[in-house]
Order: sequence, then C-alpha cells, then structure tokens
Amino acid sequence: LTVNALPDDPAHACEVRVYYFDTDAGGVVHNVAYLRLIEEARTRLAEHLGWSLAEMAAGHEVPVVARTEIDYVRPARLADTLRITGRLVELRSSSFSLEFEVTRPADGAVIARCRQRMVSVRLATGRPVRTPLAWREKWPHLAA
Amino acid sequence: LTVNALPDDPAHACEVRVYYFDTDAGGVVHNVAYLRLIEEARTRLAEHLGWSLAEMAAGHEVPVVARTEIDYVRPARLADTLRITGRLVELRSSSFSLEFEVTRPADGAVIARCRQRMVSVRLATGRPVRTPLAWREKWPHLAA
Amino acid sequence: LTVNALPDDPAHACEVRVYYFDTDAGGVVHNVAYLRLIEEARTRLAEHLGWSLAEMAAGHEVPVVARTEIDYVRPARLADTLRITGRLVELRSSSFSLEFEVTRPADGAVIARCRQRMVSVRLATGRPVRTPLAWREKWPHLAA
Amino acid sequence: LTVNALPDDPAHACEVRVYYFDTDAGGVVHNVAYLRLIEEARTRLAEHLGWSLAEMAAGHEVPVVARTEIDYVRPARLADTLRITGRLVELRSSSFSLEFEVTRPADGAVIARCRQRMVSVRLATGRPVRTPLAWREKWPHLAA
Repeated sequence: LTVNALPDDPAHACEVRVYYFDTDAGGVVHNVAYLRLIEEARTRLAEHLGWSLAEMAAGHEVPVVARTEIDYVRPARLADTLRITGRLVELRSSSFSLEFEVTRPADGAVIARCRQRMVSVRLATGRPVRTPLAWREKWPHLAA
Repeated sequence: LTVNALPDDPAHACEVRVYYFDTDAGGVVHNVAYLRLIEEARTRLAEHLGWSLAEMAAGHEVPVVARTEIDYVRPARLADTLRITGRLVELRSSSFSLEFEVTRPADGAVIARCRQRMVSVRLATGRPVRTPLAWREKWPHLAA
Repeated sequence: LTVNALPDDPAHACEVRVYYFDTDAGGVVHNVAYLRLIEEARTRLAEHLGWSLAEMAAGHEVPVVARTEIDYVRPARLADTLRITGRLVELRSSSFSLEFEVTRPADGAVIARCRQRMVSVRLATGRPVRTPLAWREKWPHLAA
Repeated sequence: LTVNALPDDPAHACEVRVYYFDTDAGGVVHNVAYLRLIEEARTRLAEHLGWSLAEMAAGHEVPVVARTEIDYVRPARLADTLRITGRLVELRSSSFSLEFEVTRPADGAVIARCRQRMVSVRLATGRPVRTPLAWREKWPHLAA
C-alpha cells in the first residue's frame, strides 16, 4: 500500500439494485437490508483505497465495524437502482470513520445516510492494530 | 390499548441463540445479524407494550425505523445465548425511542448497545401518525 | 453420545414466528427465509439427537448441508406462528437425511416441505467423517 | 414481450462476489446465502428473457418459487468471484423451470447446481396465470 497508488479523493460510488429479498411486507426496502448493501459499498471503497477483500481474507488484519449510525430518510422500493457513495472522513491511530449516502438517481431522492466507525484488528487476537500508515500520509487533513 | 393493561416498566427482555447463519468467516456474529436479532426483541417489546405484530399486519399503522445507532462492544460467537433487553426511553407526538442492550448471560459480557428512533406511520400514505395516547398517559415522564 | 440418552423417535418440533425481515414486497414470507427458519429447526433437532451446537462450535466435526429440496406449498404471512417438525429419515456411513414439514397451527395449513442431506465433515480438512455410531445403533431401520 | 426481441438461447450468466455477510463461522459461504445469489441471477435472467423486475413490481403477475433443489458441490470462500449461469429448461402452461450452475472462474470449480420450478401468479389472488406466450413460441422445444 503506497501513497502514490492512492486516489486524491478517498471516496467511491457504486450502484446496487433492489431485489425481492431486500424488501418486506410493508412494500419497501427493509431497514436491515441497507446495512448489507452498505457493506458491499464499504468493501468496494476499501478496495479503492488499497485494502482488498482478498487481502483481508488471506491476511491477519481486518477492519471491524465498531459503531453504525444510520438515518432512514425516504423509503426505497423493489426494482429501484440505488447509488451508494462512500467516503473516508476521519483517521485515528487505530480506527477510521466512513460516511455513506444512499440516493436514487432516477429522482435524485436521498434514501439514507450512514456513518460507521471501523477498528482495524488482528484477527487471531481481536486486538486493535494501527490503521494503514499510507492513508495517514496521503490524507493528513483527515487526522482527528 | 388501555393504560391499565400496560406494565409499569416499559421494558422487556428475551433470549436468542446464535446460529451459523448469524456468524461470518471472522468466526463471530456478523454486524448486520444483530439488527435482525434486535428486530425480534423490538417486536416482542412492542407486543409487551400492547402493540402486537398481528395488529401491525392487519391494521393501518405501523412503527418504522427512522434511525439506528449501534455500538459493537464485544464479539459474540456461534452457540452463544444472548439476552436482549429493550426499553422505551422517549415519547414524542409521532415518534418514540427505544434502547437495547445485548448481553451474554454466561459471562455477563455486554456485547452491543443500540438505540432506535421509531416513527408511527399510516401504511397507505407513509405519513406519520400520533404515537399511542395510552403510552403517553402511562409513562408521562418519557415525554421529551 | 450414548444410545440410552437418545429419544426413540428421532424427531423434534419447534415453533417460530414470522417477523418483518422474513417477508417480502409480495406480502408473504420470502422463499429464502424458510431456509433460515429450517436451519434453526435443524439445529434444535440435532441437539435433541445429542449433537449440540456448542459441540459443533468447539469440536472438529460438523454437519454440512450437501443438498436441499424444498417445496413451497402455501404462502405464510407476517405475524404467523409456524410449526417446524424435523425428522431423521435416513442414515448412511458418512451422510444422513432429514425431513422438515412447516405447518401453520392456526389453520392446519401445510406451508412447505423440505428434505436435506447432510454430510459430517472434519472442519480442518473438509473431509467426510462417519456419522455418529450411536445413531446407527439406536435407529438401525434408518440405514439406507 | 415479442418473440423477435428474445435471445435464441434462453440463458444468461453473471458474476457475483462473496462478501463477509455471505460467509459463516465455518469459513465458507453459508448454504442459505447461495439462494440469495441465485435470486439475483434469476432476476437478471428473467430480464434477459423480457420479464423485468420493474414490470413485476408494477404489474399484477409475478413468478413465484414453487420448488428449489440445490446441490452443494464444493465450498466457496470470502473474496471469491462466482459465476452463475442460469437457463430456462422447461416450459409448462403455468409454470417453468430454471437451472443454475455456480462456478468459480479462478479455478474452474463447480460450486453448486440448482434447479427451480417457478409458477406465474396474479399477485392479488395468488392464482396461477399462463406463462408468457412469447416464451412458448420462441422456444417450443422446451415444452414439457
């Protein structure tokens, strides 16, 4: 993970579709389903920032969700295409925070906003480890 | 829903078990799984407070999650029995807030803490409706 | 695991409720949700037959689903209570088969029928191991 | 839905990735997770065959899973990319059958094979309706 390979803006957007299994009998996307969609966006963001899922799977250090806050703004529905924009917003020595905005491009509606604090841990011990040094060098303005 | 039928303490606890489908390849309960377990506890709490799932399914007014905050304190694992204690902590005219604590009775560990703000809506329109009057009469100290 | 501790009839029934997260926008229980409910029933059946989830978690041998067949007979809905009856129906040297019937006690409707073939494997290697000897001694008529 | 707009081969393949929420504490993709991935592949196949999810959501006729058979051949793991090839294999007056093969392109391994029988129903009544006529005209060799 080198500073040069990192994007200037620590953000990434992806699109996901709403399938039947995302919805509930109220006719809308179920509140828990958003967190699975956000995990997909978070994994893609992590890879965009140089920390691939394959490395997490093979290696010893993984980011773990320590806290989630999510505001449900408007309901999404079956067959909607949603855009999830994730961004690294804060860097601490052994944790970092991400923000996600879920929008519906078809009408520009904001569907949900989410913030997550992640802790990097050594899988074998569960102990926190330092966040990637290259991240702190590349985006010093994000240091808390 | 009458004041007399309501418990003095607007709280309820239940126990759930951790099955394989709750866990992930990190060997612990997956962060999203807790929100499904908390929904089960929330539904049981609502019924304890006189608002049954059958009524939600049949009727026109349902509580919808407007915001979730959850702190993951310690990992839980396969085969753990978890205790989830839910409590009504705040009442507003068309919303109310609940708090949940997830503990593991076997060792007394606190696993997670969660707060959710719920909005009562009319299903057909998605418009907010007033929270049950009996709740505000029974527990006036919870008015915000 | 001794023959004496085993029930004469290798069957077990449990009840589960249908929550919002089990349903979809069609207003019924989602087809995938049944398999999670059946996993809960299967784990309880396994424990009734002396193979506890705690042992699976701690030990080296776990039962793995090799094949699932499920027929969806009638839809179930939000707030339904479902009864899932599981039964050991066939024993082979390193696999065994289970059958599940999902019914709704309120009206006696059959909701789904499922058959699963399980293989006992050593977790570290993924290699099949022998099914519990006590099972084959207790229920010799189930040998294929 | 016209015959001319339909592909000659009623098949479609897509790729999906394995995220943490697809795995379990055994370190492999959980058996239930495959059925969610197959639902995504099935929806894309249906759209390739002219029956879009948006139409399902808006309209009155939806395909419902009547039976699923799935064989788990080899385990998949975190960070794997899986290829799911779906194919329409049989057409009856009010039902049709699909087959899916899940493979891992990285090593060519077959991970799972699945067959599903779908029934087209009118959502309001739950009653079966006829499968699309254009399908039976385009692929007469699939008539049972």
